[in-house]
Amino acid sequence: MLSETLVQGQSLTDKALERLLPPATQHPTSIHRAMRHSVFAGGKRLRPILCLEAGRMISGTLPESIEDLGAALEMLHTYSLIHDDLPALDNDDLRRGRPTCHKVFGEATAILAGDALQTQAYQVLAGLRCPAEVRVRIIEEIARGTGTIDGMIGGQVVDLEAEHSPPAVETLEYIHRSKTAALITASVVSGGLYAGANDDAIAKLRTFGHSIGLAFQIVDDVLDVTQTSAQLGKTAGKDSAAEKATYPALFGVDESLKRADKLAGTACAALDEFGYRAETLKSVARFLVERKN
Amino acid sequence: MLSETLVQGQSLTDKALERLLPPATQHPTSIHRAMRHSVFAGGKRLRPILCLEAGRMISGTLPESIEDLGAALEMLHTYSLIHDDLPALDNDDLRRGRPTCHKVFGEATAILAGDALQTQAYQVLAGLRCPAEVRVRIIEEIARGTGTIDGMIGGQVVDLEAEHSPPAVETLEYIHRSKTAALITASVVSGGLYAGANDDAIAKLRTFGHSIGLAFQIVDDVLDVTQTSAQLGKTAGKDSAAEKATYPALFGVDESLKRADKLAGTACAALDEFGYRAETLKSVARFLVERKN
Repeated sequence: MLSETLVQGQSLTDKALERLLPPATQHPTSIHRAMRHSVFAGGKRLRPILCLEAGRMISGTLPESIEDLGAALEMLHTYSLIHDDLPALDNDDLRRGRPTCHKVFGEATAILAGDALQTQAYQVLAGLRCPAEVRVRIIEEIARGTGTIDGMIGGQVVDLEAEHSPPAVETLEYIHRSKTAALITASVVSGGLYAGANDDAIAKLRTFGHSIGLAFQIVDDVLDVTQTSAQLGKTAGKDSAAEKATYPALFGVDESLKRADKLAGTACAALDEFGYRAETLKSVARFLVERKN
Repeated sequence: MLSETLVQGQSLTDKALERLLPPATQHPTSIHRAMRHSVFAGGKRLRPILCLEAGRMISGTLPESIEDLGAALEMLHTYSLIHDDLPALDNDDLRRGRPTCHKVFGEATAILAGDALQTQAYQVLAGLRCPAEVRVRIIEEIARGTGTIDGMIGGQVVDLEAEHSPPAVETLEYIHRSKTAALITASVVSGGLYAGANDDAIAKLRTFGHSIGLAFQIVDDVLDVTQTSAQLGKTAGKDSAAEKATYPALFGVDESLKRADKLAGTACAALDEFGYRAETLKSVARFLVERKN
């Protein structure tokens, strides 16, 4: 059942995050409260869930302690959200239905809380319960996926630079590929690596992650247009307000949703040779495209 | 000769940084230019030099490709400087004699350039030319040294919170230990790990790094009082302007320098059993205490 998968993935991830983040009472408390404020703000834990399910597909069962890897991915995702929301970047007051980190703790602490979540993620990754050879491959994969060349930071840079200028298709595709799909791909691939997948299986997981990551961002752009802030838990309509390059702005809502659907199909087809074992991961992929927030 | 050691360490580090950072022409260029602006701003490369010399002391010769580890340490140091200089933190216009990253590239790019240098550092560490078991130990050591609990970010948080309030000795010592000594310790220890040092040697390197790190920060505080901005290459007198907790503010310049000298003695004594092999590292330690900028 898809809903069980999602609930289990969220619960495992949340417990791992609780264990792996310094307690809020740990000195200096302000930074730890700030980190926890943003991490425990009701995130859907989609990247950890994709990671866990990729691991489960490869192993046939959920690999032991893989939730620590999921937690590290969520720390990295949250660090990027905290920094994206800063006044100098997207200047957003609301995230996951709560005031953003800098609104509560001030800009200085928010900058450092984002920094610290990145640091903590690598500390967790270095201590994962898998062979050291696998750990360094996972770290390289994730660092690349969150870096400046076709990775998360690169996508964020181009996204900011593309504001208030007519969006070109190539720019938009670079942004989607880098800002969103790269970390989602790294999540799926690192789950596979953790479970001991061979190179052929990793290549298929990479295609799956890339396609579903692109579909995810298209749906995100569409929801920004079609949903309210209350439905999204973040400020709706901010893309068009900032004249951001988005899929619906270029192709309209219907065409965008068709494209997302097609990408989900490509993603699922990449997993066909895994047979029934791929069913859960495929259902998560379809959920990502059909979600309403 | 000390000067040869310093020049060789700087040169090896600079070449490694040149090779390991994306070129300025790489898309998206703004972030890569911003990263390089701050990395190649005339830093003294003290952390890499300490790392290289710790490795040389253990191995008897400079371990192959250890400069990649030094470059990663310098990336982490530079990321912390870029973020510390931001308007929301120390709000500094001048660093290493040049305009700070956000003054040239804007706040958004500076925030992302700092983020990216941290990411790039871990990518480099994951690919070091030493056994994977050693790489993950190095990554854990460095992540801890730059983290929130007795690490660099923790020290920075307490440093910011201690502004405009009467400095307590315990607070000051926490700041020095965490903000500065922790990364210097990690630099020395990781150099030893890279060279294959055993646990006993690592413990001695840890004592050395910790003591020299504390001495380094005391001297830094003293220079902020006694030197001009031109001599320092950064804004002088800013600690007292910000009513920061510093050693000279608490104990005066003479007493502070005595304490730095004593710490340097403790540092050097920790290396006595390495005999003549420790001479270079000891001379670097004395240089750090006697420097004028």
